Parts: sequence; structure tokens; C-alpha cells
Amino acid sequence: MKVGFIGLGRMGREMAKQILGGGHELVVYNRTPEKAADLATAGATVAPSIADLCAEREVVVTMLADDAALEEVTTGAGGLRDSMASGTIHVVMGTHGVKIVHVLDAVHQKSNQILVSAPVLGRPDAAAAGQLGIVPAGPVAAVSQCKPLFEAMGRGTFDAGLRPEAANAIKLTNNFVLGCAIEAMAEAFSLVRKYDVQPEVLFDVMTGGLFSAPAYKVYGKIMVDESYDNVGFTTLLGLKDANLVMEAADVARVPLPSVNAYRDRLLGAIAHGDGERDWAVMAREQARASGLDG
Amino acid sequence: MKVGFIGLGRMGREMAKQILGGGHELVVYNRTPEKAADLATAGATVAPSIADLCAEREVVVTMLADDAALEEVTTGAGGLRDSMASGTIHVVMGTHGVKIVHVLDAVHQKSNQILVSAPVLGRPDAAAAGQLGIVPAGPVAAVSQCKPLFEAMGRGTFDAGLRPEAANAIKLTNNFVLGCAIEAMAEAFSLVRKYDVQPEVLFDVMTGGLFSAPAYKVYGKIMVDESYDNVGFTTLLGLKDANLVMEAADVARVPLPSVNAYRDRLLGAIAHGDGERDWAVMAREQARASGLDG
Amino acid sequence: MKVGFIGLGRMGREMAKQILGGGHELVVYNRTPEKAADLATAGATVAPSIADLCAEREVVVTMLADDAALEEVTTGAGGLRDSMASGTIHVVMGTHGVKIVHVLDAVHQKSNQILVSAPVLGRPDAAAAGQLGIVPAGPVAAVSQCKPLFEAMGRGTFDAGLRPEAANAIKLTNNFVLGCAIEAMAEAFSLVRKYDVQPEVLFDVMTGGLFSAPAYKVYGKIMVDESYDNVGFTTLLGLKDANLVMEAADVARVPLPSVNAYRDRLLGAIAHGDGERDWAVMAREQARASGLDG
Amino acid sequence: MKVGFIGLGRMGREMAKQILGGGHELVVYNRTPEKAADLATAGATVAPSIADLCAEREVVVTMLADDAALEEVTTGAGGLRDSMASGTIHVVMGTHGVKIVHVLDAVHQKSNQILVSAPVLGRPDAAAAGQLGIVPAGPVAAVSQCKPLFEAMGRGTFDAGLRPEAANAIKLTNNFVLGCAIEAMAEAFSLVRKYDVQPEVLFDVMTGGLFSAPAYKVYGKIMVDESYDNVGFTTLLGLKDANLVMEAADVARVPLPSVNAYRDRLLGAIAHGDGERDWAVMAREQARASGLDG
Repeated sequence: MKVGFIGLGRMGREMAKQILGGGHELVVYNRTPEKAADLATAGATVAPSIADLCAEREVVVTMLADDAALEEVTTGAGGLRDSMASGTIHVVMGTHGVKIVHVLDAVHQKSNQILVSAPVLGRPDAAAAGQLGIVPAGPVAAVSQCKPLFEAMGRGTFDAGLRPEAANAIKLTNNFVLGCAIEAMAEAFSLVRKYDVQPEVLFDVMTGGLFSAPAYKVYGKIMVDESYDNVGFTTLLGLKDANLVMEAADVARVPLPSVNAYRDRLLGAIAHGDGERDWAVMAREQARASGLDG
Repeated sequence: MKVGFIGLGRMGREMAKQILGGGHELVVYNRTPEKAADLATAGATVAPSIADLCAEREVVVTMLADDAALEEVTTGAGGLRDSMASGTIHVVMGTHGVKIVHVLDAVHQKSNQILVSAPVLGRPDAAAAGQLGIVPAGPVAAVSQCKPLFEAMGRGTFDAGLRPEAANAIKLTNNFVLGCAIEAMAEAFSLVRKYDVQPEVLFDVMTGGLFSAPAYKVYGKIMVDESYDNVGFTTLLGLKDANLVMEAADVARVPLPSVNAYRDRLLGAIAHGDGERDWAVMAREQARASGLDG
Repeated sequence: MKVGFIGLGRMGREMAKQILGGGHELVVYNRTPEKAADLATAGATVAPSIADLCAEREVVVTMLADDAALEEVTTGAGGLRDSMASGTIHVVMGTHGVKIVHVLDAVHQKSNQILVSAPVLGRPDAAAAGQLGIVPAGPVAAVSQCKPLFEAMGRGTFDAGLRPEAANAIKLTNNFVLGCAIEAMAEAFSLVRKYDVQPEVLFDVMTGGLFSAPAYKVYGKIMVDESYDNVGFTTLLGLKDANLVMEAADVARVPLPSVNAYRDRLLGAIAHGDGERDWAVMAREQARASGLDG
Repeated sequence: MKVGFIGLGRMGREMAKQILGGGHELVVYNRTPEKAADLATAGATVAPSIADLCAEREVVVTMLADDAALEEVTTGAGGLRDSMASGTIHVVMGTHGVKIVHVLDAVHQKSNQILVSAPVLGRPDAAAAGQLGIVPAGPVAAVSQCKPLFEAMGRGTFDAGLRPEAANAIKLTNNFVLGCAIEAMAEAFSLVRKYDVQPEVLFDVMTGGLFSAPAYKVYGKIMVDESYDNVGFTTLLGLKDANLVMEAADVARVPLPSVNAYRDRLLGAIAHGDGERDWAVMAREQARASGLDG
């Protein structure tokens, strides 16, 4: 396929390589062009602008950091709306809010373009291995047309239906279930510590039984080791996503008390200076709230 | 070893069989003696009273339904305090609160008896297979003395240290982390349903990735199937344990906002008549709170 | 009337004086008899035991510190159950839980005695002025019979109906609405301080408008002045009552998320060593949770 | 003074009349010009556009419904930024978020204009009586220059300091303390109803004592009467403000658990179709969550 790719951050770069590796014709664009060097070497064309990138593309993938960047790239002067040919598909793969995706869907429809939302599950290492989970939503034909790309990048797709923002709801939900698990563990470690229990013991109990899954093994281990400076995902990014969850809940009219609990813990952690640490640092913030770890 | 066993409910019966199968000399007692029939056939002696049971026992195991029963069996007239010989070990294996265990520990010490707390992880099928997880806490020598029993009943032990109530804190904590996971899923399904997502899709996303563990597979499946009448653990028992968690948190001075969230959901479910359903029915209660499922 | 009074603490002493001042024949009892000296001087008879106090009494008032004391005084050997004549009324005026009141109501009924629950609103100064609010509940005739006593002690009564524990539900509810107001203010002051607002300004805005009531004026002032060592009601007592509220909510199957919020703040405050300070110290604990006041 | 006024809704209209009544020279603008008829009759000039309104104004007041309207009026083509002369003051009197005020403050500074934020306390009847509370923040000289206007409209000012968004923080905080009080009452009524207490009794207990203030008298009365269709402030507006509170808390890094509690209740009420009822309808939503009022 003739593919454009915008957003060559830690995730995007790896995803673009997989597309290239899948035999597709790839044009890339990044605001800071240096990040495109690797891909150029590997055979991708580097476009000097979004407008140039859009020329003769069937599909343009965006993998951007936040809603503001996505909006700018799509509706800014010379952006996707202005540059994509009629019938072209914009595949939005970043973690975005339901509101912006809903708005941009309408924007593209008005311009006879198609928006498919397809957020991904997995970290950069999974992206580099072509092992992302992909959650596509949008018009059936368009999603189907994108399948070869998803196969190049992922281990499988989870069909989220016709409403593009539904894919984002799933992605955000998966994130918030993780946030809840981390907060639950944070509370758990503080409680047993007060009974002179070694954190390792609780970790073994949990991960050796009901909770033998990455969410608990990875984040529980960080808590046991207090290795919060070895950052996978920052507290600030956790808050950004929590706020997107709140937005999705607001739009849908769903109270989410467990999300409130961990979002408050994130706010407290940031207030105490842990914003750039791994978001497992909720355990430290919970400890503070419990009179532990001064 | 010469073992006494009190409390032949669904769990206790299976645990006692494993002890017998381990070659120990077993005397059992149950308030309703009919429940001892199986064990009598299998070779256990049935004692007509707690006092009789205690004769010549090195260890007396209790597996009782709640704190009130444990208190009565221990400190009631003719109970363990009055009947156990000096140096005998009372192994408390039920799910009890930290307060009662702390109190009974002092009671036994005063009578030159020893209390070991050793709550178990796993359901009746694990008990029947001798595959329980066991979390012992208490004096080192006494815990060590009980090891053959634990080996007969369990897949392994998780050492909780010297304070007996620490074992209960771990057991209750493991339970509450589960309650938090169930509530998080409950919130998750309500949210995505508002975006027209099939619950199965979210279930696959979660259990195929970060949450590939029994807590999510078992309870998520119940939610997807809405099979709340196939009861593993009732909402009312969930509340009982949540209240024990609150007590442990109160004693330890630890705020547990995530526990609040799921405890409130349990209260709401019971208020709506779902007390005897499986506690995964939190998902239905969350749906109600979200204006779904009337 | 022929009145017995048990429990001469800060509140009870003043209430007993008002009864005496109302022209009633008063016999008093206190575990530590020195506290009865004032009342003896004022004309009350001091009984050497509860049994002696009960002789020829129409009504026995208890004003005790907690549920355990109430239970002991009522059902302990030589207590009210054993000593009150048939038809005598036990007026329970302390702040107690719904469970114990319900249990003791049944205890008295079985002994042909009557329990009226009548918790009070107001602090020792209101008690000393005979200006307490009184919330009676129980059998109509018995409540009616007690009216002269209530008139001696109070500014008015609020009829809570036939179920004695309903009076306690009201008293506890009034307390928890106060706890919620204090927590709301605590959150409020932390938030505006982050915007460089002087706490006094917010205090003036609140108490000069929608919140021109003692709850806000008294506790808001303590927060503005940070005069937490001038103790009206300790954090530990606040937690005791919050736990009774949780019990009432548990019995009634009512989720109370706002109570969770302030109860957690109390736990945090106690964990940080503020248990004996005025419970307005929730503001300091909230500030800690917000990264203020280290 | 030479004053412009934009936004003649229920509040704005009354405020503009007070300015006119104070002897100031007033030009008004409203998107739907019909709403300006009254004011024209009363002596105000009606401007056909924002640009026209700005001519020769010392001060331009805006009283707009939401952040989007404020942003459009200020930064849209032909808006205040483009039209106000250097040194002119924009007095923002609506209830807006801290973010937008902070952003527009910078916008005006860049154009050598001045932003003063001055949200108001009180309902339309207070506005009509010139009895609003006013919370101004911004540069000292500019705030001082606006004093005659504030005197025309209000009963007094509460000085919020130099940062314009601080005034909004105070206004939003005052609102959220109210939301917390309403939610606390909502929980309170559900709890006592389960003990067969008449809501009026609790209302009398509360408002006759610690809570003898408008917040409780007005909203408690609505709950007792269940007169939710007599709307002062809708649930949807309550949610809008709650979201602005969350934003302010997010910016400031302050966890607000009590706000979470009432915001969730608002979401539930809206999910159940009560969005256009008075926000005291939280009591009905709480009753639903408690298994009352089906």
C-alpha cells in the first residue's frame, strides 16, 4: 500500500519500520526531521511537509503525543484535511480522547476523507517486534483496507466497531484498569507494611495466584524494588491519560470511583515532585498518605 | 502428628481430608456432626465436644466462618482456651480480622498455649487437591512445627513473620486487591458499553494482554456472560471481607480509597437485592449507577 | 421524677445538674466516684453501685463514652438489666452505634424494661446552659414520660420515631454532615492556597454567603488560624464516630462516598500524629496530600 | 465611567442595569440583540458588533455562559483583543476555568490590554438588587479603577490578589463546597430514611443547629419537598462547574476526594435523565444508589 506516516517518536518510529518491513511504500514526516534519518536509510521517503506527504497516499497514519498535536496536524493550515485526497484514510493510532476523535471524524467526513481510529496496546519493544495489539474502529471497508498495515505492526486486532471513538474508549479503559491495579497494589503494600510484612511476601502471594499477569508482575516489582527512576511510563503521562478517561466518562455519563482514587494519587505524587518518575510511584504517594516514608 | 480439626464446612472438610491423607492422626469436631461423616469413614475420630477433641492434641486447626464463631470456639465455656494443654498450638486458618486474631493470641499466651495464624488462598477445589496457598505467621518454632500439616494441605507457604495478625492482613489484602480488580472491570464494562463496544472485545483486550490472570479471566467472564447466579463467592461475603479490610486499615491508620469504591458498590448491589449473587455482580450495580440495565 | 444518672463526664455532669435544677430526685453513679462530688453538694445522692442506683428509679439515664461502656453498664453483672425494676426506662443519651442500641433494646424488652434512645446535639457549654438539642426515639408513652427530663436539659426535641436506633442514626448523620463540611473546607483551603489566595479571603466568601453557619464559622476559623491544638473534638473521636457512621451505613446498605473521603483524611491525620488535635486538622492533612505544609 | 457590557443573559442583564443605574455611560452587545431591548429603553446604547462596542471604552465587562464563548468573544476575529484600545480593561465576570483566564490574561497583556477577573456570588435576584458578592483579581491599579462598577453591582468585594485566575479559583471553590454540602445532605437523607426517619426531622436538626445557612436551608428544603423541577441551577450546570473545579485541581495538583463524590453523583443523575432538574436531585440519585426510590 501507499502509506504516509506522521509522528516518529519512540513508538511511531518502530511502527513505521514494521510497515516498511511489510513491503509497503512509505513516506514519513516528522516535525523534527532528524528523527526520520533511520527510516530514510531503511528505504522510506522523507516528506518536507504534511502536504507533500499526502501526495498519492491511500492511507496516512498518525502516531502523535497528544490531542493538540493531532488537531494541529489534521486541521491546521496545510494539514491532513487540506491535503489528503478524497477517499484517503487517516488512521489515528495515538492515545487520544474520545472528543477530539469524534470531532476529527466529522471534519474528515465533511472533506470526503475517512477516519479510522486504531490505538495500540504495547510498549516500544512490542512495537519494534511487530507485536502490538491494535484496536481499530471505523467504517467496515476502511478498517478492512487497513488490515495489511495492522498485520505488519501487530500481533492481532480487536474490532471495536463502527464509531472511531469507541476504539479510544477501549484503549483508555485498558489504561485505567491498569491504573486501578497499580493503585490497589499501592494501597496493598502500605497496609501490609504496617503489619511488618516484607513487600516481597505480598508480591509473591499476589503474582503466584490470582494476579499472575504483567500488570501486577511488572508494577508490583517496581514497588518492591522502589525502582521508580527506571521509568517506563511517567506519572505525568498517567495523569494525562486519567484526564482523558475522565473526559470519556463525562461524555458517556459514567461515574468511575476507582479512577478517581488513582487519579488523586497521581495528583498527590506530582505535587510531591514525582511527576517524572514511573507511575508505580503511586505506591510511594500512598505510603506518604499512610504516614510511612515521611 | 496428633491433630484436631474444628469447622468442617466446604473448605474445612477438604483440608481435613488432606491432613488425614498426609498420615496424621486426626480428631474432628463440627457443631453439626453430620458433616463429619465422610471424615469418620475416611479414618478420622469424631469428637463429641471441643474439650474431647483437645485431648492429647499437638495442634488444633480451626477453619470457621467468621470472627464470632472463632471467638466462641476459643474463649467460650469448654472452648480451646479451657481445653488445650499447655504448649498446644491453635492454627487459625479461616479468614478473620486482625483484631480478633490479636486478641486471641493474647488469650492463648496467657494460658501457655500458642496461636499460629495461617489463612489460605484458594477455593474448595484447590483445597480438595491439596493445592492451597498458605500464609502462616506466629512464633518461628510453632510455625515450623506445623510445616507437615501445611505440606499436606498446600502448594506452598508464604511466610508472614512473627505477628499472627500479619497473616490475616496479607490474606485480607489479597482479597481486597481482587475486589479492586472486579470493581475496575465493572467500571470498564459500563464505560465501553456506552460507546457501543461488545463486552467480549474489552474482555479479550484485557485478558490477552496486561491482565492475563485468573482475577480478570474468571470474573471478567462472569461479567461478559452475566452469570451472576452461578455463585463462587457472594456479594454478602465480599462485604464481610471488605469490612474486615476496613478494620485492618483502621487499626493500621491507612486510607484505602480503592477499597471504599468497591465496598460502596457492594453495598449498592445488596441494597438492590443482589446480596446472594456472585460478587462480580458489582458490574450490574455499576451499570445501574451509569443508567444502564435499569 | 425519680431519676438515676450514670456517666458523669464533661457532658454528663452538666446534664445531671440540669436535671437536679429541674426539681427531680436524682441519684448518680460514676465509675470514678470523685466526679460525683459536685453533684452530691448540689443535692444528688451518690450510689455506690449501679444496683443501688436502680432502686426505686422511674428512669435511668446513661451518658457514656462508647459502646463498650454502654454494653458493660447494661448487660454486665449487676448492671441495668439485672437491676432495673420492670417498667423502668433506660434513656441512652450518649453517641452510640445503631447496632448496640438495637441489641440493648431487645435485651431490655426481654426483661420488661424499656429503652429510649435520646442522643444530644451540642457541646458541654450547651449542656451547662440546658440548651442541648435532644433526639428521642422509642415507644411513644416512654418518650412522653421522659419529656420533663428533656425539658430540663434541652432547648427542644426532635422526634425520631419508634425505633430507638433511628435516633442514633440521626445523631450520627448530623455528625457526618459536619465531617463532610470540614473535609470540603479542608480541600477548599488547599486549592485556593495554590493560587496564592489568603485563606481569610475564602473564609469570608464562604461564611459571608451560603455558609453562614456554625459548622463553617467555627471550623473554618480554626483552619485559618491553624489553631488545631485548641481542641474541641479530637481527630480520634472523629474517627470513632465515622466508624459508627460506616456501621450504620452497612446495616442500612447505603453507600456514603463523602464519608469515605473525610474518614480517609482522618486516618491520614492520625497516621501523621494528629490524632489528639482538633479534627479540623483535616485541613493540615489535606495540605500534606497536596504537597503543601511538607 | 465609559463601560461596555457583553452577555445579556439572566445575570448579565441585571448587572448591566445596575451599572446604568450607577450613572455610568453604557454600551451593550449581545449575540441575540433582542435581549438588549430593555437596556436600550433604560438608556444604554446597543452596539451592532463587539468592535463597535469597544470604541472609547475604559472598561469592557463580559458575562458569558462558558469558556468557549469567552474565548470566541476575546480572541475571535473582530473580538476584544482586536478591538480594545491599549490600556483598556476587560473585566471577566462569568464563571470560567482557571486555564482560559490564564491564557486570555496573557493574550491581553501582549496587546497592552488588561484583564481583571471578577466572578460574582449570587443568583439573578441578588444581581437585580445590586447585592452580588464580587471577587476581583488582577493588577492593583486596574482592580481599583473598577471599584465604582463593583459598587454599582455588588454588596461588597473579596480581594483575590494579583493573579486573575485566583478569583476563579475562589468562585469555583465556593461552588464546590456547596456541591459537597448538597451531596452530604443527599447521603444524609438516604441514610436516615432507611431508619424510618421523616426527612423533615433531619432537616430541622441540621438547619436548627450547625447548618443554619442558606446552603442547607435552600437545598435541604428542595430535597424534603422533592421539588427538583423548580430549577435554580441545573444538574448539567453543576457538572460543568465540577469539571472546571477538576481542571483547577489538576493545574494546582490538589486531590479533591469530596468533589469526586459529588461529581459522580451528578453524572449518575444525568445518566438517569435528571440533567435539567435542580442539582439538589443528587438526593434522588443517592436514593437510587441506596435501593430507595427505584
